[in-house]
Amino acid sequence: MGNVLIFGHKNPDTDTICSAIAYADLKSKLGLKVEAVALGEANNETKFALERFGVAAPRIVTTVASETNEVILVDHNERQQSAEDIDQVTVLEVIDHHRIANFETKGPLYFRAEPVGCTATILLKLYKENNVEVPANIAGLMLSAIISDSLLFKSPTCTAQDVAAAKELAVIAGVDAEEYGLDMLKAGANLSDKTIEQLVNLDSKEFEMNGAKVEIAQVNAVDVNDVLARRIEIENAINIIIEKKGLDLFLFVVTDILNNDSVGLAFGKDASLVEKAYNVKLEDSKAVLKGVVSRKAQIVPVLTDTFNQR
Amino acid sequence: MGNVLIFGHKNPDTDTICSAIAYADLKSKLGLKVEAVALGEANNETKFALERFGVAAPRIVTTVASETNEVILVDHNERQQSAEDIDQVTVLEVIDHHRIANFETKGPLYFRAEPVGCTATILLKLYKENNVEVPANIAGLMLSAIISDSLLFKSPTCTAQDVAAAKELAVIAGVDAEEYGLDMLKAGANLSDKTIEQLVNLDSKEFEMNGAKVEIAQVNAVDVNDVLARRIEIENAINIIIEKKGLDLFLFVVTDILNNDSVGLAFGKDASLVEKAYNVKLEDSKAVLKGVVSRKAQIVPVLTDTFNQR
Repeated sequence: MGNVLIFGHKNPDTDTICSAIAYADLKSKLGLKVEAVALGEANNETKFALERFGVAAPRIVTTVASETNEVILVDHNERQQSAEDIDQVTVLEVIDHHRIANFETKGPLYFRAEPVGCTATILLKLYKENNVEVPANIAGLMLSAIISDSLLFKSPTCTAQDVAAAKELAVIAGVDAEEYGLDMLKAGANLSDKTIEQLVNLDSKEFEMNGAKVEIAQVNAVDVNDVLARRIEIENAINIIIEKKGLDLFLFVVTDILNNDSVGLAFGKDASLVEKAYNVKLEDSKAVLKGVVSRKAQIVPVLTDTFNQR
Repeated sequence: MGNVLIFGHKNPDTDTICSAIAYADLKSKLGLKVEAVALGEANNETKFALERFGVAAPRIVTTVASETNEVILVDHNERQQSAEDIDQVTVLEVIDHHRIANFETKGPLYFRAEPVGCTATILLKLYKENNVEVPANIAGLMLSAIISDSLLFKSPTCTAQDVAAAKELAVIAGVDAEEYGLDMLKAGANLSDKTIEQLVNLDSKEFEMNGAKVEIAQVNAVDVNDVLARRIEIENAINIIIEKKGLDLFLFVVTDILNNDSVGLAFGKDASLVEKAYNVKLEDSKAVLKGVVSRKAQIVPVLTDTFNQR
């Protein structure tokens, strides 16, 4: 049957797509027949990176079992984040930097997860361990992944290993990390072509917190006021989602990629828990969340604790 | 709270105990406060290795949460094989060579699983990646682990990486792998001090196969006739277990560590499926299983297929 497919999670971001491409490059040089694919369309930020380094976007698939028996996962391991029919194929390898959950295999496999800020940081180690040189265009994509996941090294999820890897990759790619990185983040923060529904769903995840249903969406912006100008339309769209899904809280986070603060818009009957969690006052459903840039590190655990304490 | 505890699975074997000791050596040299412990007493084979290389057996624990918040698992990841209260502590790292199942974390961790024959083979890579030298006595224990898991490189689970690692470790430890290895396996195969109940339970695991309850026990022997001389007592002990647990099949496997064959004793109403699985005839409940040495690779999957086909 077909090539081994390598892919990242649904709603792909820059790390998920660039790491699939990079690992496919490494594995093919090690003699495996592979193809990088994606479980969705690349976002504006990722498209900017792919164009800059002259690499085509991966083919989009939603299921895999009809064309292969074997897959390699990057940047995720949880079943519900993966291909729809992931249970019908053998997972040969996983390269990831997230928690492990909802994952099970029949036999031994290569599973490499490390608590770093980006999958690409682990991939650079794998290139070295296998004595394979990183090509300049792949180095550019891996650098893009680190910049994206770390918000140009400002996120609390960013480790010294990520910074060192990015420095090394920037030299191979021949770009200035800070200058290129800001251009790439700005390309991703260009939301002018998005409808309100796209804006609200662009990077949205649902969580259960002490029995409450909480959804948290995040968008990056160069000027948060560009997004906040559409506040009324956003509120209407979110209220429809709250109604439809029976949510207790919808937190819409607009992150300022230049100043590394966020503005939160909180709706739903538990909106006041955002005030408690960050010791702020919502005005017009809105509050500045000083220094908050990472949903994974600075929002989900803080809100979870607040829900657990009530 | 206390040191980070490093341990392997319940019913510890040589890889589980020696890998816990070796990884504790490496992690302490990397600055972490750790202690290797064990979830049970070392078997005769492991005791032989510990004595030969002058290393004390790890302290035995059954629970861990009363003395630490953080643990590192080696040679296993499944919850039911781990400490009783594993859900009450944070797993910092896992180093393993088994399938992944029944494992979940709240946050990212270092998880390194590889499809090789022995955990110690992965640990040798970690020593190198961290530029730490393996001390001679630790190298001896790691070599012992590889010899044990691979039955002196004869098991089908043994990979080229395991053989290469063992060769390197034997030089550091200053021993002849074949000569030392056979002495160690013989020490483990000395069953003369075991009661019939100990013999039958020494290394016994239960499986579900297409709805049937199957238990498979395995012991190593230098002369299988030493064990088979106690056939009547073994049969009586096993029939009591079959009755108590409602088993459909109990397969007792005596593996000849010199000739790398096994003799199987099959009891229970589904004993005939062993005949079908290996194309043999049971005589006095007994059959030679040519070339079979690995329960994981040569018994569980073969019997599972046979049960699934009926």
